Amino acid sequence: MQNDPLVIFTPSGKRGRFPAGTPILTAARQLGVDLDSVCGGRGICSKCQITPSYGEFPKHGVTVAADALTAWNAVEERYRSKRGMIEGRRLGCQAQVQRDIVIDVPPESQVHKQVVRKRAEARDIVLDPSVKLYYVEVAEPDMHDPTGDLERLRNALREQWDVTDLQIDLATLQALQPVLRKGGWKVTCAVHLGSRAYRPRIMQVWPGFHDAPIYGLAVDLGSTTIAAHLCNMQTGEVVASSGIMNPQIRYGEDLMSRVSYSMMNAGGAAEMTAAVRAGMNTLFDQIASEAGIDKTEIMDAVFVCNPVMHHLFLGVDPFELGQAPFALATSDALNLTAAEMDLKLHPSARIYLLPCIAGHVGADAAAVALSEAPDKSEDLVLVVDVGTNAEILLGNKDKVLACSSPTGPAFEGAQISSGQRAAPGAIERAEIDPVTKEPRFRVIGSEIWSDEEGFAEVIATTGITGICGSGIIELVAEMRMAGIVDGPGLIGSAEQTGSDRCILDGRTYSYLIWDGTADGGPRITVTNRDIREIQMAKAALYSGARLLMDKFEVDHVDRIVLAGAFGAHISPKHAMVLGMIPDAPLDKVTSAGNAAGTGARIALLNRKARDEIEQTVRAIHKIETAIEPRFQEHFVNASNIPNAIEPYPILNSIVTLPTVNFNQSGRETQSRERRRRRREE
Amino acid sequence: MQNDPLVIFTPSGKRGRFPAGTPILTAARQLGVDLDSVCGGRGICSKCQITPSYGEFPKHGVTVAADALTAWNAVEERYRSKRGMIEGRRLGCQAQVQRDIVIDVPPESQVHKQVVRKRAEARDIVLDPSVKLYYVEVAEPDMHDPTGDLERLRNALREQWDVTDLQIDLATLQALQPVLRKGGWKVTCAVHLGSRAYRPRIMQVWPGFHDAPIYGLAVDLGSTTIAAHLCNMQTGEVVASSGIMNPQIRYGEDLMSRVSYSMMNAGGAAEMTAAVRAGMNTLFDQIASEAGIDKTEIMDAVFVCNPVMHHLFLGVDPFELGQAPFALATSDALNLTAAEMDLKLHPSARIYLLPCIAGHVGADAAAVALSEAPDKSEDLVLVVDVGTNAEILLGNKDKVLACSSPTGPAFEGAQISSGQRAAPGAIERAEIDPVTKEPRFRVIGSEIWSDEEGFAEVIATTGITGICGSGIIELVAEMRMAGIVDGPGLIGSAEQTGSDRCILDGRTYSYLIWDGTADGGPRITVTNRDIREIQMAKAALYSGARLLMDKFEVDHVDRIVLAGAFGAHISPKHAMVLGMIPDAPLDKVTSAGNAAGTGARIALLNRKARDEIEQTVRAIHKIETAIEPRFQEHFVNASNIPNAIEPYPILNSIVTLPTVNFNQSGRETQSRERRRRRREE
Repeated sequence: MQNDPLVIFTPSGKRGRFPAGTPILTAARQLGVDLDSVCGGRGICSKCQITPSYGEFPKHGVTVAADALTAWNAVEERYRSKRGMIEGRRLGCQAQVQRDIVIDVPPESQVHKQVVRKRAEARDIVLDPSVKLYYVEVAEPDMHDPTGDLERLRNALREQWDVTDLQIDLATLQALQPVLRKGGWKVTCAVHLGSRAYRPRIMQVWPGFHDAPIYGLAVDLGSTTIAAHLCNMQTGEVVASSGIMNPQIRYGEDLMSRVSYSMMNAGGAAEMTAAVRAGMNTLFDQIASEAGIDKTEIMDAVFVCNPVMHHLFLGVDPFELGQAPFALATSDALNLTAAEMDLKLHPSARIYLLPCIAGHVGADAAAVALSEAPDKSEDLVLVVDVGTNAEILLGNKDKVLACSSPTGPAFEGAQISSGQRAAPGAIERAEIDPVTKEPRFRVIGSEIWSDEEGFAEVIATTGITGICGSGIIELVAEMRMAGIVDGPGLIGSAEQTGSDRCILDGRTYSYLIWDGTADGGPRITVTNRDIREIQMAKAALYSGARLLMDKFEVDHVDRIVLAGAFGAHISPKHAMVLGMIPDAPLDKVTSAGNAAGTGARIALLNRKARDEIEQTVRAIHKIETAIEPRFQEHFVNASNIPNAIEPYPILNSIVTLPTVNFNQSGRETQSRERRRRRREE
Repeated sequence: MQNDPLVIFTPSGKRGRFPAGTPILTAARQLGVDLDSVCGGRGICSKCQITPSYGEFPKHGVTVAADALTAWNAVEERYRSKRGMIEGRRLGCQAQVQRDIVIDVPPESQVHKQVVRKRAEARDIVLDPSVKLYYVEVAEPDMHDPTGDLERLRNALREQWDVTDLQIDLATLQALQPVLRKGGWKVTCAVHLGSRAYRPRIMQVWPGFHDAPIYGLAVDLGSTTIAAHLCNMQTGEVVASSGIMNPQIRYGEDLMSRVSYSMMNAGGAAEMTAAVRAGMNTLFDQIASEAGIDKTEIMDAVFVCNPVMHHLFLGVDPFELGQAPFALATSDALNLTAAEMDLKLHPSARIYLLPCIAGHVGADAAAVALSEAPDKSEDLVLVVDVGTNAEILLGNKDKVLACSSPTGPAFEGAQISSGQRAAPGAIERAEIDPVTKEPRFRVIGSEIWSDEEGFAEVIATTGITGICGSGIIELVAEMRMAGIVDGPGLIGSAEQTGSDRCILDGRTYSYLIWDGTADGGPRITVTNRDIREIQMAKAALYSGARLLMDKFEVDHVDRIVLAGAFGAHISPKHAMVLGMIPDAPLDKVTSAGNAAGTGARIALLNRKARDEIEQTVRAIHKIETAIEPRFQEHFVNASNIPNAIEPYPILNSIVTLPTVNFNQSGRETQSRERRRRRREE
């Protein structure tokens, strides 16, 4: 053995001696090197391509001679002439070791490829999808040993790939015999590998070597929108992304109105189930068409959603979620068939719904937990998924707590007098000069500020139509910093603030941002009622986070992750001035973008992540804000901007908030006087 | 402990000491005594009824005092007043031990009741069905520990009944929340317990205690008829039996003509699949209506059938079964849902198909193996299921061999000149006087022989319409014993036999049984062509059996079991005179009736029998007659009546077969002469 040639694999560094004539693929398998193969070493699939390196390798202590591998054989030559190969590559299953050799396994030849995530702080995804292709050679039927074709196919998969315990759908069984014969007893199988919860399953069998990608979907089913990523399950690549409005919107804008709809209308829940499933099928058509594939090529799908969407999607009446104790019909992850959910994908497609954490903390929060992995964090991280409901996670590798808090839709621009959804023309960024109290802003669709040259051209097409969620947060925070609004949330009068943009509007003041009425456009103000809405929303968010901090027995967190599409647009400084989030160094407040969608994609591409998140969710300690007395206390304090009692030392070191109070006894008296008069009328 | 009261259970004889105050059900469970309970000891289901015995028990060494059990408590009193109880019975969960006691567990209180089979030699069936009812009390939802309702139901089933790893159908989940609340968190679950191949599953949840039987079906899907038994899954009792013609008959009388139909007609296989499934649903309607139940109360069904029926039922084109190597699409047992097979039973009903043994030896033969258990036999048993195809099993506890042999439909009266299916008016029994050569016979529907008083009245209603399968076997055997037909199978002339019932019929002779032409009825004869058909059929059957004996290296068997509805009507002596079966003592030839149907019922009522038959089938050694050279040799020898070379010593000790030979050179010359003349014309 000592004289056998040495084979060194990079980048793994794994090495071993093998008899001359050993194929590189065999050596890789014996050493546990991650080298792919679909055809099992038959020179058909080319997934095992490797790059031999020649010359001196002092680091490895070897010199690789030009004849370290066998010369190209007929199989390799045929593959190269038919399909082409990158210069310097060999087929690992055909090239055999002759003398000491260094073999590089390029990333695309690794089974468990890394799918690189864009964010610096995010872990890469290790590709290990639930659906895999296997090429097998099946024993022909033998009258002396009359097993069925399926049983011989199963034997082949067990003997050639060590895949055992395989189930098969009836439709796949019905089609099996002609496929085996057409392929001359050589077939490619798509196998759903299963998990602890369900058994592996032969999904489709193609004659011969099937050389086409298989696809999977990661779907984020939101109350407002449904967004999907179509992924190539062999490369992990997102090949198309698409979204539609959730067709349930016609039954109610927010979750509770949909729950009410089902309570008030017999068959209402079933209607909404049909609507969301039909919407899914529309979305799948759309995304398949964008990618130029057939929907039946989609073999696996992962769904994340909040509990009400989860139940309506499953066809479970969400009645119980509308009232204490907010009992879920089921909280565990679900493994279902696409067919039983009326989803038109591959006929044997399987779907996976992540587990729900609690009646208000759904599979979307579980997906955020999978993406942001607070349970693996060394430092204490607060993860906030900001939407109509905020889902909040606080934890580190020792413990994770979760709750949800009813922020309402104010952060999305709803219930704001000039509020609108994020769309071209909406004010998304704002600054107010603390001296002149004059605002400047930017609208979605342009990088030019309102006081800069060229702004008139920008708004010539879009107009200035309103204020979106991030815009209202920045405006309120800027108003607080500029002394236009006080800590308790009152807008001062022109006299109090020294700005004639503060105008009387009923019994309170509004701050004028933009008057487009001369051009037939809107007059955009922030009213004191808008301030109240933002106060309610941010107080709900903060108190949820603070409650978790109480339970964790801490009074600060090491870092904060803002998740959700909206989170990506929030300025950390403004969020902190507002007191939405606890005090923290600004560079420790980051955005995770659509972390729920990312979590769905992880669960799609890595089947072990499914077991992992199921365990994580079981271990998460859930806090129900509605029954925690301290939640109300925190809420009252957090209604102040930023907070009536929390000190915010880090924020105060970078921002000085003016000490103003616009609650003058005169105004209060005036208002009391009015109420008295009304009663007398 | 030594002073604790002694509890002795009968009939098991299990005994143990328990602290005073221990409920009898608890004592039974701790001792492993088979005492049923659905409600888990809550005094609701009454399944745990026991009979305490009082007085002296010298055999057990105890004296039981009148106060050995606690007095009737309120729960027991309420149950007795509402539902009534047999005198002397107590509820095992309520009655508590106080002093030494002898407790009898009546059969109906045992979980694993014995279902008694009618045949003396058959084992009883131990009741252990796949579907069981469990009453549970489920924890209410708790906001501090927000698991789903399903998860708490699963916990209850695990903690209260030790049933784990439960799946649920989407429809059952959708209905779960209202049921739990309606039952006040007390529900009864029907659970399909699963097997090695598939996981246990909650099929239905009822509010409160569900006090109604659940049903299962054992179905024997034959080429000609479909027969079903509806069983109460808690008592094992057959509550209704019903049958219909297989609607596939319009596509072909026998299997091969159906295979041909699918080959000649695009979509033909799918048509036949739809036909048989529609037929099943008709049969289920019929049997449910007979039993006065709803089809949706049927939660489990077991099917047995030959391979072609198996494939057509599954929706697999039987093309491959029509040609060597007769490859089955799948040979293993199948666990499917009724829904995917288009069967309208309980929405979550599961179905089970027994495994096939080989391309010609189906799940029906597996069911016969389950019923007759050759693999558990101490002596060497030959099991023959006689039908259009004969399935043959030979074995003992060491080894079992199987083959099938193409007997054709002659044994069912088909292809016989006066043949007919077994129906009133058909000749089913016959004797021929060896001296006078006169026949006497009986027709189906009467016990009176044709030469007895009253026969004219018998046939006045039915007429004499033809000869059924058992009739033709007895007639041919009787003709051989009376010297009317010789060993090679030629019918003698009137001169040769001395009977003017032997009449020239073309170039051979026929034997006249009955001439009804005077009354407008048929003239019933056995023609030489009929003899040939029977010779072919019995030679095929015998050669299959003989081939298995070769493989077993034996030249006799210890006993013979004739299975199949037809087998029940065959006279062992006549079968042996004909040489259908090997030589054996007549009292060792028994009929098992519809053993395939019985096997289906065993698999329905005892889930472990499913694992058992799957293992048995895997171990059975299959012989393909078509490729065994000795099969032809045996066939040629077996064409003689009874056999050209096999000695049949046991038969010869009770029957003397006349040595006749009607193949006279003159006749042969005459016939050659005719052929020569025809060629010249």
